[in-house]
Amino acid sequence: MAIPGASHSFTLRLKLKNRIGMIGQATSAIGRAGGDIGSIDIVHVKPNQVIRDIVVNARDETHVDEIVEAVRKIKGIHIVDVSDRTFLIHQGGKIEIANKIPLHTRDDLSRVYTPGVARVSMAIYREPEKAYTLTIKKNSVAVVTDGSAVLGLGNLGPEAAMPVMEGKAMLFKEFAGIDAFPICLATQDPKEIVETIIRISPCFGGIHLEDISSPRCFEVERRLKEALEIPIFHDDQHGTAVVVLAALLNAVKVVKKPLSRLKVVVCGTGAAGIATIDILLSAGVQEIIGCDRVGILHPGRRTGMNPIKLQYARRTNPLKRKGTLEDALEGADLFIGLSSPGILHPSALKKMASDPIIFALANPTPEIMPEEIEGKARIIATGRSDYPNQINNVLAFPGIFRGCLDVRALEINQEMKLAAAHAIASVISKDALSEDYIVPAVFNRKVARMVAQAVIKAAIKTGVVRKRKTP
Amino acid sequence: MAIPGASHSFTLRLKLKNRIGMIGQATSAIGRAGGDIGSIDIVHVKPNQVIRDIVVNARDETHVDEIVEAVRKIKGIHIVDVSDRTFLIHQGGKIEIANKIPLHTRDDLSRVYTPGVARVSMAIYREPEKAYTLTIKKNSVAVVTDGSAVLGLGNLGPEAAMPVMEGKAMLFKEFAGIDAFPICLATQDPKEIVETIIRISPCFGGIHLEDISSPRCFEVERRLKEALEIPIFHDDQHGTAVVVLAALLNAVKVVKKPLSRLKVVVCGTGAAGIATIDILLSAGVQEIIGCDRVGILHPGRRTGMNPIKLQYARRTNPLKRKGTLEDALEGADLFIGLSSPGILHPSALKKMASDPIIFALANPTPEIMPEEIEGKARIIATGRSDYPNQINNVLAFPGIFRGCLDVRALEINQEMKLAAAHAIASVISKDALSEDYIVPAVFNRKVARMVAQAVIKAAIKTGVVRKRKTP
Repeated sequence: MAIPGASHSFTLRLKLKNRIGMIGQATSAIGRAGGDIGSIDIVHVKPNQVIRDIVVNARDETHVDEIVEAVRKIKGIHIVDVSDRTFLIHQGGKIEIANKIPLHTRDDLSRVYTPGVARVSMAIYREPEKAYTLTIKKNSVAVVTDGSAVLGLGNLGPEAAMPVMEGKAMLFKEFAGIDAFPICLATQDPKEIVETIIRISPCFGGIHLEDISSPRCFEVERRLKEALEIPIFHDDQHGTAVVVLAALLNAVKVVKKPLSRLKVVVCGTGAAGIATIDILLSAGVQEIIGCDRVGILHPGRRTGMNPIKLQYARRTNPLKRKGTLEDALEGADLFIGLSSPGILHPSALKKMASDPIIFALANPTPEIMPEEIEGKARIIATGRSDYPNQINNVLAFPGIFRGCLDVRALEINQEMKLAAAHAIASVISKDALSEDYIVPAVFNRKVARMVAQAVIKAAIKTGVVRKRKTP
Repeated sequence: MAIPGASHSFTLRLKLKNRIGMIGQATSAIGRAGGDIGSIDIVHVKPNQVIRDIVVNARDETHVDEIVEAVRKIKGIHIVDVSDRTFLIHQGGKIEIANKIPLHTRDDLSRVYTPGVARVSMAIYREPEKAYTLTIKKNSVAVVTDGSAVLGLGNLGPEAAMPVMEGKAMLFKEFAGIDAFPICLATQDPKEIVETIIRISPCFGGIHLEDISSPRCFEVERRLKEALEIPIFHDDQHGTAVVVLAALLNAVKVVKKPLSRLKVVVCGTGAAGIATIDILLSAGVQEIIGCDRVGILHPGRRTGMNPIKLQYARRTNPLKRKGTLEDALEGADLFIGLSSPGILHPSALKKMASDPIIFALANPTPEIMPEEIEGKARIIATGRSDYPNQINNVLAFPGIFRGCLDVRALEINQEMKLAAAHAIASVISKDALSEDYIVPAVFNRKVARMVAQAVIKAAIKTGVVRKRKTP
């Protein structure tokens, strides 16, 4: 069962008779109903009554109703208002535009706008590269989605994807000082998506793709990379892959197994699964078995295949194994789940090699709940914040784009992604490393900085830094 | 000759021998060279020398060089640095993204992003109209250009247009609190422009078109208005037209002529010219003659016509006059120039009716310079900030969009534009009105507020306010 959390946090405004014990009755009722009480504030006091705000975390929406109902039953307490804090902070959106320089006088106006701006435009016209110094292109990223795979919720469309993209833009700003703007497209046709992004690209220094469903996401990313000379990054693929590799680099240090001899099962052939297989192969993992709903991917398989899966079947599974997910786990060191809730049975761990590592990353409900395999798996990671070892993309994309923008990278290549993964892993010192601490915390401010530095180095080394004219 | 202004403002950093009279020599030299001195600051003092910053306004780039050269000749003064203030403030662009709510803790993260944001996305998915309350759509406008007609500079392309669009975004924020984001398109094909804007429209509450050349701008705007149910506004057309009408409404009060009997010559059949003819007809002006380079527009003319011009030739010129611009001015009360520098000869004013009104709006050099017709024209307006009566679009678009966004208007119709013009005109009280004060000042904060209120009223009256579900 989920535990009460901030995502289902609400504020109860209560009018109480002003006598001893009333607030105690309310908090007791909330506690008995399983609500987790945060702050309690006084809003207003009158001779006979007091109005208080109580912040309560609940498990889910039904639980909110139960808690409210429990309080409603108390005599002498009147519920003035129940406000959902998540919805409250979303009112009017989460980001805004700010002017970086004052615009209060005629002189200001004549510099930031006409007539002064004409000289700046002419300078860029004569030398287009100057857009990088004289406009926001230097620091701006488009967060683009078609709303076809919003979180784990499915094809919700562009409007419903907006709060997620705005959230992403907030993360860009907070963790890397990047100005990201959400672009939610009213088309789900790959050709049109690509076309549209190319057309709006002049004012952006990078394109962050998000929540575009598989397999269309592969085509969209590939064609954009061919067409544009700015960084293109599909977070659902590479953000996840980079952080999975970072976690794995630390996990193998804990279990003392070399990467090159690791037997890995990747379950899930969506965007994240395919990219993870890709980065693991680049990192030196040699034996990977890919699985989907049907079972092991192998080139001879006929059921449920597609060109992408066939390609990966050819590049993985060196021993040409066949069968089910459980068959694949025979002797495996690591299970990576990027698929669906509950598909891994605890008994399957018995087939795995010693010190099994389980990355159960389906969100919000993992392939197997950590409590089911405690003591059986040596290391467990999930996508959740309420267990140790959270695999969270926010560890990767802010630093990766920071590095790219700082050197005006032409692309994000595999070397840069590998460098990012190593940088994330390196944030945890050897002494600090343990089964429960293979991934740095989301709010560790060192991460983005170190990722950016590593990405810059790799970009320079691989020659994808935009050439700058010698002054 | 232009006068020194803030748009050609530069900072001279000088190292001077620390003795009496040195700074006087510098300022005298600057003054003799025609430079206009602003602030003088001390940056650093050493026993024998002092470093000072002198802010100087010049006329143009050549003039900057002349002033610098004059200072360079003085013995005992070394020029450390010459920095162009307009370029300085453009470094890294003029706008940025800001987070409206803090993102410092795990709880913050779980509300603005996963898992909390999932509930917000689902709420919009179930009821798309909620995008207006739970995302930035409520207050966001795309400032879109294809860079084909940047200011008066021509087809500079999307990158060079960026500083102008960023400036526009600043004006939106400063004057109306609107979050506008620049979108500069890498296509100049009307079909592709329209397509692209439709596809990126879900996250915007309005579309502000800018610097798209004529006649493509008409098709782009018309097709967007047909396709989308959010306000579409091509500023070069309607922004100018609204402020021209506002100025005219006050001008006719000064000269005491009724609008319905005014004889008007509009010179220029580009975006602004066509829209101005349109709004004047809507406002009740009956006799308008349109002119272009060739001369008077009339339906029988064969040279230099196009479908747009033909349409306007049919709607105007009721007396079917033919001939040159000078012929058109015979007996005219008002000349509106939206064309090219210097095309109006002072002698032409003699043919006009008594109390002639001249709106010479070509920018930066008008159709006729005000000093050439002082005492001959009763009222003169230009697009410039260094003469009285500046016709500036910033008086119109911030308030128009503020009003539209506040009531989620489905479109911007002619009634709303007329209402905006009347609101701008009404900011100047009857007592204050004079030949030199027919348009409010750009920084008059009342303007946007009054325009917004008038636009809201007109939108409600014409039934283009988005229907809201009764709660």
